[in-house]
Order: sequence, then C-alpha cells, then structure tokens
Amino acid sequence: METGLSEFGKVVIFGTGLIGGSFALGLKEVGAVEEVVGFGRTPATLRKAQELGVIDRAGINPAHEIGDADIVLVATPVAQMPEIFERIAPYLGPNTIVTDGGSTKGDVVAAARAAFKGHIGKFVPAHPIAGAENSGPAAARWDLYQGKKVVVTPLPENNDDRLDRIKRAWSLCGADIYELTPEIHDRVFAAVSHLPHLLSFALVHELAVRDDADLFFTFAASGFRDFTRIAASHPEMWRDICLANREALLGELDSYRAQLDELRVVLANNDGDALEQTFNIARQARRNWAGDQ
Amino acid sequence: METGLSEFGKVVIFGTGLIGGSFALGLKEVGAVEEVVGFGRTPATLRKAQELGVIDRAGINPAHEIGDADIVLVATPVAQMPEIFERIAPYLGPNTIVTDGGSTKGDVVAAARAAFKGHIGKFVPAHPIAGAENSGPAAARWDLYQGKKVVVTPLPENNDDRLDRIKRAWSLCGADIYELTPEIHDRVFAAVSHLPHLLSFALVHELAVRDDADLFFTFAASGFRDFTRIAASHPEMWRDICLANREALLGELDSYRAQLDELRVVLANNDGDALEQTFNIARQARRNWAGDQ
Repeated sequence: METGLSEFGKVVIFGTGLIGGSFALGLKEVGAVEEVVGFGRTPATLRKAQELGVIDRAGINPAHEIGDADIVLVATPVAQMPEIFERIAPYLGPNTIVTDGGSTKGDVVAAARAAFKGHIGKFVPAHPIAGAENSGPAAARWDLYQGKKVVVTPLPENNDDRLDRIKRAWSLCGADIYELTPEIHDRVFAAVSHLPHLLSFALVHELAVRDDADLFFTFAASGFRDFTRIAASHPEMWRDICLANREALLGELDSYRAQLDELRVVLANNDGDALEQTFNIARQARRNWAGDQ
Repeated sequence: METGLSEFGKVVIFGTGLIGGSFALGLKEVGAVEEVVGFGRTPATLRKAQELGVIDRAGINPAHEIGDADIVLVATPVAQMPEIFERIAPYLGPNTIVTDGGSTKGDVVAAARAAFKGHIGKFVPAHPIAGAENSGPAAARWDLYQGKKVVVTPLPENNDDRLDRIKRAWSLCGADIYELTPEIHDRVFAAVSHLPHLLSFALVHELAVRDDADLFFTFAASGFRDFTRIAASHPEMWRDICLANREALLGELDSYRAQLDELRVVLANNDGDALEQTFNIARQARRNWAGDQ
C-alpha cells in the first residue's frame, strides 16, 4: 500500500505506549511510514499520543482502518490481545501483516490462531526486548530500540515476504533481529526473566510476612538491593506473564528447585570444595555475560 | 593507656584493607587515636598501608604490641581469625579490648571463646556493614563508615565499659551502632545477605552448566543483570561465609524452599489472585524498604 516514497504506508498501533509508541516514532524518524493510526483504551491516551506526534490520528473503527494497513502492531498487555485479534480478524487486507510486542509467545500465538484461523500466515509474532520502567505515550522514544534485541518467532505459515517485512520494520527502528521458535522463546525467557522475577518476589514476600520482618529489613544492604530490585515490578503485569508462560515457567522453576536441593546437600555436608566450584562456575559465567553486553 | 589527648592510645589492626584500614583512618580523622600498628599477611601490603598513612608502623611480634593496646581489631577474612586469636591470646593487657569485623558471628565467637577462655570478656564482637567491592589498603577510606551500620553482638561476659568503648570507636568513625545477639545476627544476615548470594549463584550456575547455555545468556537482560550481580562475588569468600553461617543459612534456605513450593502450587493451579497477592505484598515491602534507605 505504499503510495509515496515510504517503505510502509499505513501502520496501525494498538497500545500507543512505550512499546507501540516507540515503534511508531522509530519508523517516523527514518521516514519509513506514511501514516500512523492509533487505537487505545482511553481517548485521553490517544489525544496525548497525537499531541506528542506518536500517532497521526486516533482510529475509531477497526473496520475502516485495518484493510489498507501494511502493519498492525498489537502492543497492549498480553491479556488484552485475544480480544483485539478477534476485533481485527474480519478486516485483514491482502497486504496486511499483524505483529505483536508481547513478552510471551506460546499464548499469543494460540490466541492469534483462534482469531485469524486460515489467515494465521498474516500474523508474525515478535518480542522486542526493551525496558518497561515507564509507560504511556510520554515514555515513547524514537531511539528506544537502537541496539536492542527483537526476537521474531515465525510460524510455519509465515511466508518469507511477510517475515522479512516485519524484520525490516524492526531493523528500521534500530533493533538487532533474532529468530527463535515460539516454544524456545518461552523457555529462554522463563529462565532468564520470568523465573528471576518470581524468585525475587518470593524472597521479599517470605521475609515480609514474618512477625519480625522489620528486624530483617533493617539490616538488608546492597546485595539485597540488587537481588530484589525486580520485586518492585508491577504485580498485575507479572501475574499475567507468569500465567501466560506457566508451563515453561514451571519447568524452569523445577530445574531451579533441583539446583537448590543439590546445594542444600553440599552445604549440609560442609563440602567447601563443591560450594566453591559452584560459585566459581557462576561467577565466571556472569562475568563472561557482562563482558559480552 | 591514653598518654595524650586522644581517646584511644594504641590501636592494633590485623588486616589493613578496606575494613580495618578504614577503621584506622576514621579514628585518625577525628584525632581519636595516637598510634595505629598493623599486622598483615605480606610485608608489601603493610608497606603500602604505611605509605598511605593507614597505619603508623607495621608490627613484627604480637608479644610486643598487644599488651599496651587499647583496641585490637581483627579485620581479616573470618577463616583466618581463629589462628590470630590464638596468637594474641597470651598477651592481652588489662586495658586491651579485642573486636572483629567478621560478617558472621557465631563461629567467630566460638573461636574467640576457644582462644581467650577466661578472658573472653575482653572480646566484643562486631560486624560493620560496608561494601566489599574493593580490597587492600588502597581501598581504605576515612569516611567509609559515615552513616553506615555497625552491629555489635555483645557477650554476657562483656562489661559495660568495654562494650561502650567499642561502640564509641565505631561511632567516632561515623557509624550508627546496633546491638543484636550473635544468634539473631547470624539469622538476620543469613536471610538478607547470605541466602540471596546463594540463590543468585545457583541461578547462574544452573544456566551455565546447560549444553545450550549460550542461548539463554544471549537473551538475558536488565532483570537478570540486577538479580545476578551478586553472583559475580568472590567464590572463596562466599564459600567461607556460607560454611561459617551454615546452620542459620540452612534454616533460611529451607524457609525459602517452602515458599517456592507454595508458589509452585499456586502457579500450577493457575491461581492468579494468589500470585498477584504475593507479588503485591513483596512489592509493597520492597518499596517501603527502599524508601527507608
């Protein structure tokens, strides 16, 4: 649908906050989009997004906006995606590609399959890895994705052209593109993101419900600060992520519990060598990782 | 033994690095000490400490330095303390008070009792809570303890005068003084410091030994960074701390494992309300804690 010089004609964004808004601004920054239309939960948010130049106008009715869109990005919380997929499914045009910004993929793909059915090939799932400290249109930045990772998790039904166009759009925003299957994606993020959040919440909760909780918090210092920073994350959002990625998270949690069981035996046996070796392997891996960042 | 205007005459420091050196510099800064004598593992370290003004001179023989000392601070790694206690025990003078800077207390007190026997009242255990990123005399700073916490864990045998003098010395360094029993101290620090380190090491180790470890580390991001920062801590030091505080740490580890078992059930049951409530309590407690710091 490119009618001018831009690579993409119309881009429709559901959820014009940090993730969706930054995608729009990133494409605008390089002149890669002709028009951005936003949908959101409240008129106030859409007005704000328009004032800030994140979107060109607010959409009223998906029936009038989806058919001639090149890209539809659904960047809402994952829990809202099934309903949005149902709303837009009847209107996908011949050139419309739908993508998403959800941090879990198995559940999003399942919802997309249920809504898009035979047109599932038009849905290319993706997960941009970018901070989430702030939200709303005011948090959107054209350079949010510069040098950040975006994981695309293609479906067997995606043809190369559609896949390439979604990867191209994220590249234009400055992102480095990776490909994983939805299943591997979910396992990886369960291990390196969802589980650490669960563990951090668990530690603080376990202390907080003690009768003498104050005594413990009084002497918590810098190590506690680092370890528990993510326990200040948004409870509702993390509830949804944990439930959305439940199977993979349970698997990772069980691997971790087995690791703790082993360490308990090592400690109970006073086995300094095994303890030091475990710590050594961990430190080396952590240092290598930090050096690669 | 004050021969001049200073509150303390001679202070002897075993281990002239971050903890011991900063104690010396803190007392010197306010003119509260006449002479600081240092003992250390290598002549080079002691030379460096003297060059930097951390100590006035290096001690050669404890037999000549301990009897007229007002304070002897043992600020070495905890594992070296029993031997140092044995070396100095024969020479304690009538006004000598021994204290330490160890991050565990039950094991240090046991070693002190074994060495000092009937003179155990002259040993006032303490734990200054200060960062340990750097070490050696060059890391010592006069203001390290300004506004930091020092936990004194008095023994029944300590009389008020000795206890007050150790508290006073740390106050002169700018620290806020707290009192706990050695047992409560060890339980508190097992929970808020030693356990988080163990959990962080465990997470990184569990990923690092996987065949496909690289896949996981590739997608680790800011939450992982915070949670695992303490997994880059010194393996030998943390082995010693974990072993030294083994009983309390096993207790805290078991409480935490019980918490994880509960969360596993909640997750397996898809119980979003319970999950959100746990996260909410944790976030509120983490925020209250951070606000108090």
